[in-house]
Amino acid sequence: MSYLDEVPWNEHQLIAAIAQDASSGKVLTVAWMNREALAETVKSGRAVYWSRSRKRLWRKGEESGHVQKVLEVRLDCDADALLLKVEQAGGIACHTGRESCFFRKLENGRWMTVDPVLKDPSLIYKK
Amino acid sequence: MSYLDEVPWNEHQLIAAIAQDASSGKVLTVAWMNREALAETVKSGRAVYWSRSRKRLWRKGEESGHVQKVLEVRLDCDADALLLKVEQAGGIACHTGRESCFFRKLENGRWMTVDPVLKDPSLIYKK
Repeated sequence: MSYLDEVPWNEHQLIAAIAQDASSGKVLTVAWMNREALAETVKSGRAVYWSRSRKRLWRKGEESGHVQKVLEVRLDCDADALLLKVEQAGGIACHTGRESCFFRKLENGRWMTVDPVLKDPSLIYKK
Repeated sequence: MSYLDEVPWNEHQLIAAIAQDASSGKVLTVAWMNREALAETVKSGRAVYWSRSRKRLWRKGEESGHVQKVLEVRLDCDADALLLKVEQAGGIACHTGRESCFFRKLENGRWMTVDPVLKDPSLIYKK
């Protein structure tokens, strides 16, 4: 049996995949994988997700260059999630140009943006 | 408008919530919150989830004592997830008696259990 058969794919045949910076421990992104994305991730050593909006494989960094080199893949006990330990190219994981997608923090009942933009997205996603 | 209204609840009115140990950076658990669970988490400072299997609020640690004190709540840009920075009581987050739920690691095409059981679950969940 393949390791792929042991993954508890949800009703959409997806699983959430958390990417964590292997050195800093910072949680960078949460995205989704289908069977094909996980298989390619493991084979290539680079994070490949399933884009629910574009309905196609999304090779992280394919436009931005901000690839995630995958050092480790873990599976949790029952909550249907993968944890990837990654090296984040460019130090930027978020499409907003920030290190992490979790840049809004709840402070006194409001979501406050607390992390800086490291690079203007218009410079990341050139036409 | 309440911060609760800005959360991108999914079709089941839930959002995934990642709990990360605030000091070690270890990713401990992924669970689900509904509006009521998040509101109580923020108010009480202790992680409260929505148990999809039991279909009720699940005050983490209510049986095990392994409560998660919540120091910080973050929201990501678009992937529908919360990130909680927590202090994990007992140093055990997983119902298997391990520190983290992510105790299986992919090695040579197999999910290998790589983290130890710190406490026998039968001693955690006493009748």
